Amino acid sequence: MQITFTGTGGAGGVPRYGCECVACIRARLQTQYQRRPCSALIETDQVRLLLDAGLMDIHERFPAGSLDAIILTHFHADHVQGLFHLRWGKGAQLPVLCPPDPDGCADLYKNSGILDFCQLEPFKPFEVGDLTLTPLPLNHSKVTHGYAIETSTGQRFAYLTDTVGLPEATTRFLQSWGAFSMALDCSHRPQARPPANHNDFNLALEIINQVSPSQAWFTHLSHEVDCWRLEEGFRLHDNLAWASDDLIIKI
Amino acid sequence: MQITFTGTGGAGGVPRYGCECVACIRARLQTQYQRRPCSALIETDQVRLLLDAGLMDIHERFPAGSLDAIILTHFHADHVQGLFHLRWGKGAQLPVLCPPDPDGCADLYKNSGILDFCQLEPFKPFEVGDLTLTPLPLNHSKVTHGYAIETSTGQRFAYLTDTVGLPEATTRFLQSWGAFSMALDCSHRPQARPPANHNDFNLALEIINQVSPSQAWFTHLSHEVDCWRLEEGFRLHDNLAWASDDLIIKI
Ligand SMILES: [Mn+2]
Ligand SMILES: [Mn+2]
Ligand SMILES: [Mn+2]
Ligand SMILES: [Mn+2]
Ligand SMILES: [Zn+2]
Ligand SMILES: [Zn+2]
Repeated sequence: MQITFTGTGGAGGVPRYGCECVACIRARLQTQYQRRPCSALIETDQVRLLLDAGLMDIHERFPAGSLDAIILTHFHADHVQGLFHLRWGKGAQLPVLCPPDPDGCADLYKNSGILDFCQLEPFKPFEVGDLTLTPLPLNHSKVTHGYAIETSTGQRFAYLTDTVGLPEATTRFLQSWGAFSMALDCSHRPQARPPANHNDFNLALEIINQVSPSQAWFTHLSHEVDCWRLEEGFRLHDNLAWASDDLIIKI
Repeated sequence: MQITFTGTGGAGGVPRYGCECVACIRARLQTQYQRRPCSALIETDQVRLLLDAGLMDIHERFPAGSLDAIILTHFHADHVQGLFHLRWGKGAQLPVLCPPDPDGCADLYKNSGILDFCQLEPFKPFEVGDLTLTPLPLNHSKVTHGYAIETSTGQRFAYLTDTVGLPEATTRFLQSWGAFSMALDCSHRPQARPPANHNDFNLALEIINQVSPSQAWFTHLSHEVDCWRLEEGFRLHDNLAWASDDLIIKI
């Protein structure tokens, strides 16, 4: 399976509007450092799935018929805001597989247009083409799912954002899943007290120690994290990496 | 005052996602026919105001400090969706003057970031730089204001969308306002029964007959309206015009 990091930014992205920090200035000058709303495109020979819909130009990037489904981690605006425009399309319904959030976001459920929302059950695997996905509950201020994604030939990739730590049941699932790669929320630089809603770098490393992925990419990154990396010149272990927008990996 | 129609489309815009009608095909081939979310930039020597925030690239079009305020007609997503990203900016608060809608849209009130929401009272004039604006109630499925905008030298412009017909008090205000130009909701081609939430062409003409603007531009236009215009080759009276994206007028 091929994974494209279509966005690796937290809410507000990089550059952050009006911010003059070194990371934001760099991102304005060199677009390869920009971080759009956190999302990923998953492709195999048989399917094309978009994980999260915060990109505000979804309707331009993905012409009608080019996606088999959109899969949502949760209904915070930075993960669904591209749907507000897309929903008014014409033609075939587009499946939007989502966590069982009774509220959704604004009037998306009420005026769903071409979007066919379908709520998923945690830990209950489902198939899309040649992929099997299992929703994994995460710890966040809204009902949130990560996804364990497996190809028919046993390649495995976990997508885990937005979260602060992991629920025990999700940790156990990953510990018994077999070899896998993953993308993980790392919204904050190391903090004295871990934040309420997202991993800081320390907590992200702790999760990695617990579930032992063969490789991991940090995503949902903020300008703070980029500033910290520029200050510290920190070097990650060989099996860890910072994701960046448009990075393509093959699992 | 200078007015730029930064967007002249209804919800879904033109081209509409996945639509193969003649207006949508034309808009894909020739970008001057595209219609972005309905909005307008109002400029004088002293102020720069954005009317509605449905453009999804507000944060790129208007760098921090370049707008004095955003003024909202209402909290439907196609009029506020650009705020979801913009709010996470750094630095000075940005005034967002809005109708007294208790709900706003999604979590905009709760997580307002740099946005300083300020609810306006209908018919109570307020000043921004050398402009005086008066909120005018409209008929729509959410609390909605049009705005009567006047310069210190007596140039007048009314911005009236989204609406189906006009409330009587708004009609009376405009009838006694003196000479003015206006932009008016014309979301639908002529319909047998006028639609519930927006003007069709017939109702738009009726409003124009009632309030007698010196000039009027139709906006909040749909692909249906553009198709109808292409089919009919209809010619408007000299004081009426179809707005188009990036059209600049001086009042
Ligand atoms: Mn997020
Ligand atoms: Mn979130
Ligand atoms: Mn509208
Ligand atoms: Mn509306
Ligand atoms: Zn910054
Ligand atoms: Zn069309």
